[in-house]
Amino acid sequence: MGIQHTVVFRLRHGQGSGEETAFLATAHDTLTAIPGVEDFTISRQVSPKSDLDWQFSMVFADQAAYDAYNNHPSHVGFVESRWVPEVASFQEYDFVGLE
Amino acid sequence: MGIQHTVVFRLRHGQGSGEETAFLATAHDTLTAIPGVEDFTISRQVSPKSDLDWQFSMVFADQAAYDAYNNHPSHVGFVESRWVPEVASFQEYDFVGLE
Repeated sequence: MGIQHTVVFRLRHGQGSGEETAFLATAHDTLTAIPGVEDFTISRQVSPKSDLDWQFSMVFADQAAYDAYNNHPSHVGFVESRWVPEVASFQEYDFVGLE
Repeated sequence: MGIQHTVVFRLRHGQGSGEETAFLATAHDTLTAIPGVEDFTISRQVSPKSDLDWQFSMVFADQAAYDAYNNHPSHVGFVESRWVPEVASFQEYDFVGLE
């Protein structure tokens, strides 16, 4: 049934800023181009019970596809060049549906 | 497009225990019977980067449906009688897809 990989995060950029828009667009274009990434979505996190603002979600068919993504140069490069400097706080979760 | 309401949590019960199974079954039966709850799912949280074990996810058509769920006696009763005593730790997030 696949693995849903998610990360909820808050940017250092102001809400509605050009830097925010550019970060989200680059993430979308970079990450969706990596083989094995399915159903990539960007959502706003709107609950006041969390101080995080955004979520990326993607689905991998299996652990091998997930591992290949993690090790893919495009992913590693995105994390180093954009994620680390531009993200203030984040939390990852991976979900597998209960049969 | 609706609001995805989620909560990631860890139970006080042991993994694979009868108490765990009973909690999940009661949650499913109680919450899916509340009007406005769509696409209810139970997932295992499997990332080692979080110490939470489970996720409930549901979708509401709009804020009015979400509010009605929050105030519904079945939801309030479930929180008081099962959630508070049986859940050790949790984090809520609500997601709205980016157009």
